Amino acid sequence: MDTFDAIEARHSYRGPYLPDPVPREDLTRIMEAGLAAPSGCNKQTTSLVAVDDPQVLARLRATINPPLKRENAPAAICVLTKRVNAYRDKCFAVQDYSAAIENMLLAITALGYASCWYEGHITDDDRICDKMSAVLGVPEGYDLVCYLPVGRPDRAVRGVAKKLPLEQRSWFNAFGRTEA
Amino acid sequence: MDTFDAIEARHSYRGPYLPDPVPREDLTRIMEAGLAAPSGCNKQTTSLVAVDDPQVLARLRATINPPLKRENAPAAICVLTKRVNAYRDKCFAVQDYSAAIENMLLAITALGYASCWYEGHITDDDRICDKMSAVLGVPEGYDLVCYLPVGRPDRAVRGVAKKLPLEQRSWFNAFGRTEA
Repeated sequence: MDTFDAIEARHSYRGPYLPDPVPREDLTRIMEAGLAAPSGCNKQTTSLVAVDDPQVLARLRATINPPLKRENAPAAICVLTKRVNAYRDKCFAVQDYSAAIENMLLAITALGYASCWYEGHITDDDRICDKMSAVLGVPEGYDLVCYLPVGRPDRAVRGVAKKLPLEQRSWFNAFGRTEA
Repeated sequence: MDTFDAIEARHSYRGPYLPDPVPREDLTRIMEAGLAAPSGCNKQTTSLVAVDDPQVLARLRATINPPLKRENAPAAICVLTKRVNAYRDKCFAVQDYSAAIENMLLAITALGYASCWYEGHITDDDRICDKMSAVLGVPEGYDLVCYLPVGRPDRAVRGVAKKLPLEQRSWFNAFGRTEA
């Protein structure tokens, strides 16, 4: 799929999903796309765990309370970060994993799958992410920060987020200037 | 350009650039790609200022000390963020602008241009970003967080960041597990 088409077609899909398994080859391509993203000072702070074992998926979902309604994808990718400094006291781990996630969302879209960036729901004060980490055997030093379902969407796109017009968020040569 | 090709071809290019101007149409497409990125609770915290006026570019560059060697691109995009909360005390502005930047880097690559994500250099303790904001008339409430040159590269790619092998950063069904 063309890059601009994937960027335009990507949207947050909250399920339901078809049960068709996602081939390992596709999960690998999606993870390769994620890990191809840049990172501050090339510290490569992002790591990934793809999950396609139904038992592991079920154990992960059991940690999510309240559950993600209709999220029944046959696979998922969990995003891990190491919050190490790129230099001195400067850490770009959030930038690093966010760029990786966006790459994966575009790869997921280009391959005909759907997904949704679930972060706040699992990293909130009840720390669902730590329970997910325990399921996956994630060692100390890594934080699980995002859960990305991967699967074929079971219904037409609806409820795509409405965005402000371009001229309210982008300008030329000075803030607020849309003319040359 | 195919999505996976753009993801693979994107790299941090530190100049020099050819002087050919970047058409407004291309800058607009790049900014549209950036603003198509998702944002936490759709708060759309990211805004953009494209700069193609040579005088404004010169004033921006004059704020960058030490200067970015060989960075002489004919255009640039400055990334602004509003650090508003998505809900309660949770702010996803860094995630939002990072996803937008990655989309723009892919769009830049797909259109045959080069760029580099300059963030730490301008947001460091000497706050070059605030001087850049003053040049662009950015009002209070917005932080300038990234400077993306846009132009045709003037030399072959070299010095592309080396990355760890996939099996050291991605696994299946459990941390560190590469086998089924």
